[in-house]
Amino acid sequence: MASASDGMNYAPQGKPDPVVKPGEFCFAVAAMDHGHIFGQTNGLTEAGATLKYTFDKLDPDKARNLADQHGAQHVTDLDVILNDPEVQLVAAAAIPNERAPLGIRCMDAGKHYFTDKTPLVSLEQLGDVKAAIGRTGKKYMVYYSERLHVECAMHATELIEQGAIGRVFQVTGFGPHRLGPPEGRPDWFYKHEQYGGILCDIGSHQIEQFLTYAGCKDATVQAAKVANYQHPQFPELEDYGDCTLIGDNGATMFFRVDWFTPIDLRAFGDGRTFIVGTEGFIELRKYVDIGNPDGPGDHLILVNKDGEQRMDLKGKVGFKFFGRLIRDCIDGTETAMTQAHALKAAELCVRAQMQAERVTD
Amino acid sequence: MASASDGMNYAPQGKPDPVVKPGEFCFAVAAMDHGHIFGQTNGLTEAGATLKYTFDKLDPDKARNLADQHGAQHVTDLDVILNDPEVQLVAAAAIPNERAPLGIRCMDAGKHYFTDKTPLVSLEQLGDVKAAIGRTGKKYMVYYSERLHVECAMHATELIEQGAIGRVFQVTGFGPHRLGPPEGRPDWFYKHEQYGGILCDIGSHQIEQFLTYAGCKDATVQAAKVANYQHPQFPELEDYGDCTLIGDNGATMFFRVDWFTPIDLRAFGDGRTFIVGTEGFIELRKYVDIGNPDGPGDHLILVNKDGEQRMDLKGKVGFKFFGRLIRDCIDGTETAMTQAHALKAAELCVRAQMQAERVTD
Repeated sequence: MASASDGMNYAPQGKPDPVVKPGEFCFAVAAMDHGHIFGQTNGLTEAGATLKYTFDKLDPDKARNLADQHGAQHVTDLDVILNDPEVQLVAAAAIPNERAPLGIRCMDAGKHYFTDKTPLVSLEQLGDVKAAIGRTGKKYMVYYSERLHVECAMHATELIEQGAIGRVFQVTGFGPHRLGPPEGRPDWFYKHEQYGGILCDIGSHQIEQFLTYAGCKDATVQAAKVANYQHPQFPELEDYGDCTLIGDNGATMFFRVDWFTPIDLRAFGDGRTFIVGTEGFIELRKYVDIGNPDGPGDHLILVNKDGEQRMDLKGKVGFKFFGRLIRDCIDGTETAMTQAHALKAAELCVRAQMQAERVTD
Repeated sequence: MASASDGMNYAPQGKPDPVVKPGEFCFAVAAMDHGHIFGQTNGLTEAGATLKYTFDKLDPDKARNLADQHGAQHVTDLDVILNDPEVQLVAAAAIPNERAPLGIRCMDAGKHYFTDKTPLVSLEQLGDVKAAIGRTGKKYMVYYSERLHVECAMHATELIEQGAIGRVFQVTGFGPHRLGPPEGRPDWFYKHEQYGGILCDIGSHQIEQFLTYAGCKDATVQAAKVANYQHPQFPELEDYGDCTLIGDNGATMFFRVDWFTPIDLRAFGDGRTFIVGTEGFIELRKYVDIGNPDGPGDHLILVNKDGEQRMDLKGKVGFKFFGRLIRDCIDGTETAMTQAHALKAAELCVRAQMQAERVTD
């Protein structure tokens, strides 16, 4: 799909590593408002899932093209998907404030749901989602791509589990993004009610990484900020946000997100994660190694008692989340990500957004 | 002096660049509790100042050695220094909570004062210092070495003034430090009342950089944290701290400091500064370029409309602060740093410390 310089449509591709036979696990695509749907589709199909249907209520051509690429069927009625018992999971990247209602509809039709982040934009939606999970027993899983679809970030997950840096007590995340030509973004991108605010939207990746790397089950938002520094023509756009959290185990996080990536950077953003533990630290350079002309992304730097190690992980780690998600749906397990974890990250990004102090007029 | 792997005694050396003739500007060293005094002395003598006396109330041998290196006179009575009209400035790195009283004594004796950071540890001391400045007309200047004595940090100061990244709206600073063998530190290092808390001590560097790079005259502390994660044998040690601030112009900062640098890192800490502006960003890798075996410190990476540039600045920028400070003392100017700026950073680090939430028991 698109290159790493276009964040909206960045869709990592991995090696096929099927966990099911063709046709054993069918899914459908039900909303394509955000380009992340291509990454979601890649991840699932590379893990062996079969794309049976595609649907997009606004852009049938886009849905038809995706269907053609995967030998799937394009439909113009969502109910075809919801009424087909072969469809076990619905993947979707709807407008953020429509993600929860769509998911609940899918779950009530007996489907697992796999939504782009942010999975929801209010505590009310969170309550509705939790009720639907209780009512249906279906999964409401989330594409937190900045960890799940980044090889160095997945490798960090394993290194930390293995104790490579001791007990993690601090995570700092930078999630800068390129806005690109303003007219290249859909209307909803500039409407706060629809996109949910910058902390809720691209901030959700960051909080999910904190909960994972620091091993927190819960956290509190200590402070948060949002701003519109440079885009008065879009008064509802937040072009900057940050947040600091305190985990239930005493670990802490800070992250910042923005829409200021310079046009000449080789990636959509200089995404970084810094993870500090009692026995060492890890730095992730996710999409580019700035200042190094040969430096692609997916670098992990580990400093601990064994010295400094730099790992170029492109193509070496893979994306285990997707196969595990498929198996979880079939087996009723939670090996890819627990439901509680997925929703806790969502809850905290909503709380960060609600609590944010606006630092510009 | 010592290498960059020993933060307590790290004393950068530059090229001689005298702004005065020998003997034209005499200074004395009056306290050597922190090894920063060697960096202060290097900076001043390289800029042409003449070290006339050394004094340390606890360790006369250390003071005598320094005197011998510079052809100065070691004295065992501070009053010799204070009573000599040739001495225009007293440099000192006392125990943090003794820095203000010593400085006020020097100023009342008609000397300018140049203290190691943190310059003071309470709002009461701040009031006393301001009163002394008003009473004596003397300077109370501060060795914020993590900018003033780091070439890439000084170059960032100039690039930002030239508009290289537009309007700076965010600064993130990492100030990790190596504790080293615990018995290698003096008693006062572990006593909160004496060292002032981690945000006040090594945090002061960070706030000074924020005020400089973001061009703030004032700021508020939005939130702060301190912790003792791993050193129960030193209950008054804070081995971690962080803080987020909002500047009077809407720019923001986050910094974290800690005492967890792994033993095998090539420097006392992976000091970093990330400065984001509306037209680009700058990253400083101050003491080491981790993961790059050939990578020394003093790297500046600039990303803006001209693309990505990596600058190796070791030996190329120099340390202009010291010559300017000498001229300011002679000429009654404020070209090195304004008094208001030096004290605002001090005030904010005290406020951060007072406001900090403790996240460990």
